[in-house]
Amino acid sequence: MTRDSPANFMDGAIPAGLLATVRSKRPLIHHITNGVTINDCANITICTGAAPVMAEAPEEVAEMVAAAGALVLNIGTLSATQVEAMLAAGRRANELGIPVVLDPVGVGATRFRTETAQRILDTLDVAVLKGNAGEIGVLAGTGGSVRGVDSGGIAGDPVETARECARLTGTVVSMTGAVDVVTDDRRVFLVGNGNPAMDRLSGTGCMASSVTAAFVAVADDYAVASAAALAALGRAGERAALEARGPYSFRTALFDELAGLTPDDLTGHARIEER
Amino acid sequence: MTRDSPANFMDGAIPAGLLATVRSKRPLIHHITNGVTINDCANITICTGAAPVMAEAPEEVAEMVAAAGALVLNIGTLSATQVEAMLAAGRRANELGIPVVLDPVGVGATRFRTETAQRILDTLDVAVLKGNAGEIGVLAGTGGSVRGVDSGGIAGDPVETARECARLTGTVVSMTGAVDVVTDDRRVFLVGNGNPAMDRLSGTGCMASSVTAAFVAVADDYAVASAAALAALGRAGERAALEARGPYSFRTALFDELAGLTPDDLTGHARIEER
Amino acid sequence: MTRDSPANFMDGAIPAGLLATVRSKRPLIHHITNGVTINDCANITICTGAAPVMAEAPEEVAEMVAAAGALVLNIGTLSATQVEAMLAAGRRANELGIPVVLDPVGVGATRFRTETAQRILDTLDVAVLKGNAGEIGVLAGTGGSVRGVDSGGIAGDPVETARECARLTGTVVSMTGAVDVVTDDRRVFLVGNGNPAMDRLSGTGCMASSVTAAFVAVADDYAVASAAALAALGRAGERAALEARGPYSFRTALFDELAGLTPDDLTGHARIEER
Repeated sequence: MTRDSPANFMDGAIPAGLLATVRSKRPLIHHITNGVTINDCANITICTGAAPVMAEAPEEVAEMVAAAGALVLNIGTLSATQVEAMLAAGRRANELGIPVVLDPVGVGATRFRTETAQRILDTLDVAVLKGNAGEIGVLAGTGGSVRGVDSGGIAGDPVETARECARLTGTVVSMTGAVDVVTDDRRVFLVGNGNPAMDRLSGTGCMASSVTAAFVAVADDYAVASAAALAALGRAGERAALEARGPYSFRTALFDELAGLTPDDLTGHARIEER
Repeated sequence: MTRDSPANFMDGAIPAGLLATVRSKRPLIHHITNGVTINDCANITICTGAAPVMAEAPEEVAEMVAAAGALVLNIGTLSATQVEAMLAAGRRANELGIPVVLDPVGVGATRFRTETAQRILDTLDVAVLKGNAGEIGVLAGTGGSVRGVDSGGIAGDPVETARECARLTGTVVSMTGAVDVVTDDRRVFLVGNGNPAMDRLSGTGCMASSVTAAFVAVADDYAVASAAALAALGRAGERAALEARGPYSFRTALFDELAGLTPDDLTGHARIEER
Repeated sequence: MTRDSPANFMDGAIPAGLLATVRSKRPLIHHITNGVTINDCANITICTGAAPVMAEAPEEVAEMVAAAGALVLNIGTLSATQVEAMLAAGRRANELGIPVVLDPVGVGATRFRTETAQRILDTLDVAVLKGNAGEIGVLAGTGGSVRGVDSGGIAGDPVETARECARLTGTVVSMTGAVDVVTDDRRVFLVGNGNPAMDRLSGTGCMASSVTAAFVAVADDYAVASAAALAALGRAGERAALEARGPYSFRTALFDELAGLTPDDLTGHARIEER
């Protein structure tokens, strides 16, 4: 299944190839994550084709991460002990060249979250910073509001906000929204896949970080991998919305559809525009 | 859709109006809750029409709660650090006039739980105390038994037990059961909505606290809001039972039905008797 | 529903009778478990017919376990505080003759997990040690590899590995896989029920420990009870696979099917071979 795409659309075979690679390599994704969506993250990682492991004891994280293909740090239900574990795991990941995906959940809502996200960005080499618009706006320093863990919007243009954040942090920024913006400052990818039902479910943001980590674990180009991951999850969401009667049957369908998503379907339906 | 109700039945338009208000105001509900049902609580809050945030680090709870419309304290998987966080968040909520909903999960099963629930009630101004019959019986001091986190029954009359607990604690007591009893001592509301399938699923009690908090966040009369919340969740349970093949498909349907519950349906089907 | 079984197959009436006993006695199952699958464990315990309680504060575990029919210790997301709680609860369980089920999740993946599992086995009288092949191989000392929390395979024969582990630890070993091996060294039971879909879902291993604990709580023969538990969960998995469209609809069906599993169905379809 293919589609004629205008020149500025990424060839769907690229995300499809990465999905196939995730499934053949089945990378281990080490998560230090929040207690709300930890089960969602484990299962979405499996549905993507990778293998999850959750471990956050300072006693073991440096050892566990050494076996991983990527590390997810998600600050959704942060504690002081978790910060310690995140830094220890992240330092070891950096030493070994294992990419780190940071999900700064709720940054801006409290000083503890803001200072922790900043400390992680200052201390570690973060490969991908995945957040909603408000979170990215806060970290870009260009103005962003966060209410609990939800985006309250940003002051300026989404693409410029994401690029400024990428420049400031030296990471690939993956900013989710109605249209996702992925950028390493130099390049900008807009991902059009997805469905509004994903916003009416707890945990889709966290899931996006897990899927991103699975793709980043098998790719050299983290911006392309991040855009591909959001296209894959978004495409599963599009298919799931056709079957759902409400947010929880949507959830069931989302996991089923991602697990069943074929590279062929993604080739035909990924909507990644390079701007 | 309306229904002729005898004089002692609350007009269904009252809970329906509160549900509509939750959805238009979308209050932020700060939870310090247990690890078993934390995801259920986040999703049921969204399905009600409110926005959940879970945060329990002592470093941030006082700041987080300041943005919330209500605070849920649930002692289902208690730790010493959580107690500290609950008291800090609760004190700040009290200063700001933000209502606190306490779910004393498993009180009576261990001294740690009993002493913590008592300490919270002694230290904080709790708006609503939501528990099963055994838990309320323990806190009323009239005799109640708790096995793990399940009610083992009470010694006396349910309504009198709930009223005694309300008098003793100065809270609105919301006691769930086959018929729920909500009372501020002066008034007694009996809520007849619900389905036995709700008892064969982990977390429905915790969900009831989250839904209660969403309603309490937009109402001045906490007793009416608590009864309305149980009617809404119970009505979703009645509808879900028609579709379910077992406890997990019931769970999926429960969330879907609450998210899709219309004020009109609640107007016609809320069964709240004032005694 | 019955089936003609060759002489070395356990009479299906035995697991069926234990299932019926779980449902009539409804034992309380105290879990100190991981944060990833804690909700799955609570709900699968209810679906089996028992009552779950999760409590891990060192302040309360010895008191909570005294009311339980069995104790599950699962090291999937271990912390130092949890180790302390596991030992305190386990010692009290041992004093009271309450069986302890240990799930050494990820043992071998980090020193912290390996040392903790070993410390629990050295300190406590563990009734059943339930793990995947890699985990049991590690604890048998015969060679096993563990990647994150997944089995990476074992060096030798599965039955001999399980028997060696049983000899070394003095426990009933319940080793899950395509065919499960349950042994107290003297006897070996092979359980053929199950479906590969169970491997594509997070938490089925943890669920197996919860179901095992429910059966062990009502039986004197822990090896027979462990085999019966795996047959019951596996049979639910076989039925669920017929309805599922993917891993998450399989999950829904698995819980529904276990809750609806009749002793008659299990009598006819349990596949437990004594070798």
